[in-house]
Amino acid sequence: MSLDPAIAARLKRNEAGLFSAVAQERSTGDVLMVAWMDDEALARTLETRKGTYFSRSRQQYWVKGETSGHTQYVHEVRLDCDGDSVLLIVDQEGAACHTGTHTCFDTDVLLAKP
Amino acid sequence: MSLDPAIAARLKRNEAGLFSAVAQERSTGDVLMVAWMDDEALARTLETRKGTYFSRSRQQYWVKGETSGHTQYVHEVRLDCDGDSVLLIVDQEGAACHTGTHTCFDTDVLLAKP
Repeated sequence: MSLDPAIAARLKRNEAGLFSAVAQERSTGDVLMVAWMDDEALARTLETRKGTYFSRSRQQYWVKGETSGHTQYVHEVRLDCDGDSVLLIVDQEGAACHTGTHTCFDTDVLLAKP
Repeated sequence: MSLDPAIAARLKRNEAGLFSAVAQERSTGDVLMVAWMDDEALARTLETRKGTYFSRSRQQYWVKGETSGHTQYVHEVRLDCDGDSVLLIVDQEGAACHTGTHTCFDTDVLLAKP
């Protein structure tokens, strides 16, 4: 799958060819997770509407929920002003975090509400 | 300012010593921006409750709103499950984006609602 060249031209990738992707739940507004994409992962996400990322540790693509069943249906994708981050508005099936929590930010609070 | 060693031990930084930071508006749930932090930027954010980041292009710290007046008061900070991203829940004064839009994701829609 190849990415629309007009979109590819607006992306700013890091040295590894990657940019960050934030998944936000449509119904709750919760920020579910932050992961990485390259052009191919973004192209696949846009084409299939399934959240698809690139794993830095495994150096391979992964479709969210492919093994867990916790898929992400992608409603919207937005690129930020400097082209190095995308925001995905998704419907999340089940837990977004591999630890079983709703979001990846549920467990470790560094600073609490005052 | 130095970061609590118990927090520092849980962080996973990239080759440049950085991790991503997502700022989300408390009142609306809007994802405002994605930027970068190192340990020092996080320590300053936790201590001052002012969103403080590290600029990769300028290689220096910046306090959000320091020049624009569009400050971020930080209510909560959460670390994600793999320790390489923080979520800041903030009150945003004025526009979060340097282009003048409310968020950095307002302008460039790559995939629209079906």
